[in-house]
Amino acid sequence: MVDFSEKIFSKINEIQNPSVVGLDPRAKTLPSCVLDEDPEKLDDEEKLKVLALGIERFNKEIIENIDGIVGIVKPNAAFYEALGEYGIKALKETCKFAKKKGFIVIADGKRNDIGSTAEAYAKGWFGELGFGKCVDALTVNPYLGFDTIKPFVHYLKKKSKGIFVLVKTSNPSSKDFQDLDVKIEEDGNKTKKLYEIVAEKTNEWIEVEGLEGEGGYSPIGAVVGATYPEELAILREKMPHSIFLIPGYGFQGGKAEDVALGFDENGYGAIVNSSRGIIYAYQKLDLPEEKFGEAAKIAAVNMRKDILSALEKHNRLPKGWKI
Amino acid sequence: MVDFSEKIFSKINEIQNPSVVGLDPRAKTLPSCVLDEDPEKLDDEEKLKVLALGIERFNKEIIENIDGIVGIVKPNAAFYEALGEYGIKALKETCKFAKKKGFIVIADGKRNDIGSTAEAYAKGWFGELGFGKCVDALTVNPYLGFDTIKPFVHYLKKKSKGIFVLVKTSNPSSKDFQDLDVKIEEDGNKTKKLYEIVAEKTNEWIEVEGLEGEGGYSPIGAVVGATYPEELAILREKMPHSIFLIPGYGFQGGKAEDVALGFDENGYGAIVNSSRGIIYAYQKLDLPEEKFGEAAKIAAVNMRKDILSALEKHNRLPKGWKI
Repeated sequence: MVDFSEKIFSKINEIQNPSVVGLDPRAKTLPSCVLDEDPEKLDDEEKLKVLALGIERFNKEIIENIDGIVGIVKPNAAFYEALGEYGIKALKETCKFAKKKGFIVIADGKRNDIGSTAEAYAKGWFGELGFGKCVDALTVNPYLGFDTIKPFVHYLKKKSKGIFVLVKTSNPSSKDFQDLDVKIEEDGNKTKKLYEIVAEKTNEWIEVEGLEGEGGYSPIGAVVGATYPEELAILREKMPHSIFLIPGYGFQGGKAEDVALGFDENGYGAIVNSSRGIIYAYQKLDLPEEKFGEAAKIAAVNMRKDILSALEKHNRLPKGWKI
Repeated sequence: MVDFSEKIFSKINEIQNPSVVGLDPRAKTLPSCVLDEDPEKLDDEEKLKVLALGIERFNKEIIENIDGIVGIVKPNAAFYEALGEYGIKALKETCKFAKKKGFIVIADGKRNDIGSTAEAYAKGWFGELGFGKCVDALTVNPYLGFDTIKPFVHYLKKKSKGIFVLVKTSNPSSKDFQDLDVKIEEDGNKTKKLYEIVAEKTNEWIEVEGLEGEGGYSPIGAVVGATYPEELAILREKMPHSIFLIPGYGFQGGKAEDVALGFDENGYGAIVNSSRGIIYAYQKLDLPEEKFGEAAKIAAVNMRKDILSALEKHNRLPKGWKI
């Protein structure tokens, strides 16, 4: 069986691009060209249907335009869930479409629960009856400890699936808890940041479960924000078996220079997400809204160039890749 | 506008019972009487439909049976999400049905995200277009800090909604991170557990946002497991404005004696959840599966008696309540 990390690297190499496009369409700001009717003129139920179908169309056009440039998409569950059952259907259709085109699909759900409930999440996202046929990986929140992670391990080992554990997130208030100084038992004076402990513990789980693949990476990755480059460099050392999913590039202020520190010496080990910077690029490029797909393509090409240039500058451009 | 905490207390007083029934039906173990066909004989799509409809029927019968005994239900999103769009529809129908009967509905989603994504969750669960008409409260994970909480505040202030922040969860591995010793800046030698810091910070957010209601409680509650009675007592002191949602009673080993410590001196400030202990009571009571509703009623009556007796023993039975 192919390990999830090998799947990622094979895809990244195929297109020479570690970018991820976040498919986070906001119902409120959808280009009107993807909507069959003006939602404001409809009753609630019809509005949900029209918006969900609009989101599905929007995503498909983005996917078609970035096909061959980007190899990974990451829909965030929140935007689909907000439209109830219609949104979930749009999410499924989006994932199916991306999968058919050969994309790797990461569901950004930040799910977390315990025992048989965590099992239900694992089954729902990775099982054949749920999203298993069209989703490759899921983001998970570690606050509840290993009980949250354990039910996924079966799917990592047997079904080539992956999870990304939230370690240090890109938002300003990630400091509220993630940056707390935790006392280390062995030495009364020394402390570590909570995100460091989460990183070490995650690495421990990978080793205990024997998940390090032949290439050293495992199907348990980590979410580390581009907005904290210093932490990114520290965590790169602490988590040798984890591919980093780096959000925060672009709209949130993270630069290619910053994310370069999340890659290993060979230029692997990280994937970089941009959502609004790509899917709403028509706004920034001052193009008419019907050109949102074309604009996404331009932005995706620019993002690839930006990141690859930073990797080259840091002497981390993978062998054989051309900018 | 009625504050969420007042809504809870008014409901609890009406039926003299602080119990919550967790509507966590597992597709695999549904009584066959709620299924139109044998799911194993169907293709994937039809199987999902039959299971989701089965779950909806199962829930409605439970709700009808506990009506008048229990006033709060808590469906966990994982079990619905596992059945895709059909499951989400079943969740919505369940919530609508419970709401119509006068129940308070807590969606156990443990959701968490940042910025505009957290806004999408808030809108999805509390907005009119989403679950807003049938869901009163949502559980949220605090690992990402206040950015996760902030988008909900509008709905707490203006729409009588509530959230429950995960503080100390009922599972064994909650110790992995929640029990870590965090160094407190002011004093180099003193430490606090991470869950204590989360508790204090949550309390701070309540005060900063001016959310303490007239009765002292606020719409921001906390999830604290029945399986950790000592922590429950400590946290009761630290979080004077938070109603505790206490999972872990029954199936997970928490006793009425233990949960009593989560209540304030007047016998308020906590609600106690049981899921499997109620909805699958027919198994424990050795009743035929068609009697699952009746069995749930018996178990709910017993649970009420059990908890009220423990409150009485601790001199915390609310004034006027009769066991």
